[in-house]
Amino acid sequence: MNVGERHYRTIWLSDDKRSVEIIDQRWLPHDFRIEKIGTVAGIATAIRDMWVRGAPLIGVTAAYGVAIQMTEDPSDAALDAVWEILHETRPTAINLRWALDEMRRFLKPLPVEQRAEAAYRRAAEIADEDVGLNRAIGENGLEIIKAIAARKQPGETVNILTHCNAGWLATVDYGTATAPIYLATEAGIPVHVYVDETRPRNQGAQLTAWEMAGHGVPHTLIVDNAGGHLMQRGQIDMVIVGTDRTTASGDVCNKIGTYLKALAAADNDVPFYVALPSPTIDWTVGDGLAEIPIEERSGDEVSLVWGKTASGDIAQVRVSPEATPAANPAFDVTPARLVTGLITERGIAKASREGLKTMFPERG
Amino acid sequence: MNVGERHYRTIWLSDDKRSVEIIDQRWLPHDFRIEKIGTVAGIATAIRDMWVRGAPLIGVTAAYGVAIQMTEDPSDAALDAVWEILHETRPTAINLRWALDEMRRFLKPLPVEQRAEAAYRRAAEIADEDVGLNRAIGENGLEIIKAIAARKQPGETVNILTHCNAGWLATVDYGTATAPIYLATEAGIPVHVYVDETRPRNQGAQLTAWEMAGHGVPHTLIVDNAGGHLMQRGQIDMVIVGTDRTTASGDVCNKIGTYLKALAAADNDVPFYVALPSPTIDWTVGDGLAEIPIEERSGDEVSLVWGKTASGDIAQVRVSPEATPAANPAFDVTPARLVTGLITERGIAKASREGLKTMFPERG
Repeated sequence: MNVGERHYRTIWLSDDKRSVEIIDQRWLPHDFRIEKIGTVAGIATAIRDMWVRGAPLIGVTAAYGVAIQMTEDPSDAALDAVWEILHETRPTAINLRWALDEMRRFLKPLPVEQRAEAAYRRAAEIADEDVGLNRAIGENGLEIIKAIAARKQPGETVNILTHCNAGWLATVDYGTATAPIYLATEAGIPVHVYVDETRPRNQGAQLTAWEMAGHGVPHTLIVDNAGGHLMQRGQIDMVIVGTDRTTASGDVCNKIGTYLKALAAADNDVPFYVALPSPTIDWTVGDGLAEIPIEERSGDEVSLVWGKTASGDIAQVRVSPEATPAANPAFDVTPARLVTGLITERGIAKASREGLKTMFPERG
Repeated sequence: MNVGERHYRTIWLSDDKRSVEIIDQRWLPHDFRIEKIGTVAGIATAIRDMWVRGAPLIGVTAAYGVAIQMTEDPSDAALDAVWEILHETRPTAINLRWALDEMRRFLKPLPVEQRAEAAYRRAAEIADEDVGLNRAIGENGLEIIKAIAARKQPGETVNILTHCNAGWLATVDYGTATAPIYLATEAGIPVHVYVDETRPRNQGAQLTAWEMAGHGVPHTLIVDNAGGHLMQRGQIDMVIVGTDRTTASGDVCNKIGTYLKALAAADNDVPFYVALPSPTIDWTVGDGLAEIPIEERSGDEVSLVWGKTASGDIAQVRVSPEATPAANPAFDVTPARLVTGLITERGIAKASREGLKTMFPERG
């Protein structure tokens, strides 16, 4: 999407047709840095150290890493080696593994002299497929926003709350939860986004707010505590969030705190939507609460807050006593009963086993 | 309560029997500073600039300010002047006004030469009355904790979640929401407290966590997003929070985010208690949602986070883009239907008009 006057994706092929350029997200929102990467080691660092993050973007970055390898050594041995090197950068990232498998599956049958060119072509396709998926989610979600706008006075603003960053920075473009928002803006519907700061890592304050500011979407940052109050006062028309994993019965695993917003939405009759590409549906899991293990991250993410000082330096400050331990569960599970609908690339599914089966009959 | 090995109140008479000493709370949790104050100007600064905070503590500090004035000039004119000077330090603080009115009402009939001594005596009584009120709340709340402990295996920990700081730092001693916790600790019941960091001002991370650490209460800091997840997983036995204002029908106005925790508690059958001294019941208000105006504070409290750097300096860091505005509603209203009970100095009232009338028949 736009960063000021110019359109960007999170990753693109460089003019040399060999390297890729990425937005180095570690410095956002304080510094907008683009890095050109032309080696497998550079790609591995960018994924491991989270210069790029978000499942779809990690997958695309890895695919380009394979392509770079093919320009240096397109042998089977090198293909296997780059798979290993990149896979271990973030071994639990499902899209990373998928992209590496896909590249290897696609390249192995080809003669070695054709592999480099084919690899760049396939990597570009994977990037474009992600954009297409998100655009389709956006178009389906746009219908919901249009329906809300139609119930208001002409020109009246539609207020949307979102949690964490399921934005274009986590994908190649559009994002998932943000895609309907960007398309609504393009369609001329006046939207305003309440951005949850999303403690402890502040992805809302740092990334979603930056996206909105860059693309010119009216938005307001709030603490994670404030959403319930705003819903009580009628200041939120709908909630849209992303998800890391949706179960076959429609339970939604997403950033910690999502469940609290879903409860408030239900208590105040505010529609609560989850935007997701269908590959993130885990058809093997039914009961999200019972079956999804929740990652427990370092307590330092809670105790230490990162930002920019008045003098412009990047610094970390401790907000709690040294003697106080912190717990940091990274995700929670929102039961399907609290979800108004799942916005997928095919349409809006009911958050239930039946709803998902109807939308994806080939998985039933 | 204890700060390490030693017991403190938040305010006490100095050895010179004229000045008061206070804990300068602006530096907590990073620095434990005690200030000796012997002038009315000093008292005014301490209240205005929030060296002391919390309604009961502000009232007691002001009462001692009147006493200090009486040692310098015990005339009627000076009594009226000190009322004005101290009242304007935080004009909306209800306990401040009450304490100043009470001191003037008590001193005016006395001969001027008796006023100084009487003023210190009355100020000490007001302080002790606050301690007594909180201790009574603690004893009533302790019964709830005992009942929960009795349903567990012997020696099994009772897990309590609290939001914001309704602790001894906001009062003279014990606190309101924390009083049952401190008394449970004294009674040898194993308790563990999950402390919500309480964005945006982080009173949980800075003050409640410091209280718990100082008094040796096992505790864990969590982000405000995490409480719902912990309740879903059965890791919370009860919630206790304080309140700034409770309506005659039992609606509870408290720090922003309280409502979200009450929703999660109700959704997971976790008892949700509110601890309050009865003077904070506003008998003139029925429907809290409709009738209580919510203070909107500066967005800078959201965008800028205060803490200690690795090098030991106190610094503020910006977490969001400069271009992003922030909204900062300071309180929310938890409807009575979500409150299991109101822990008052007289006992535990049902959060309803009938429940409060039964407990306080003189107000019916």
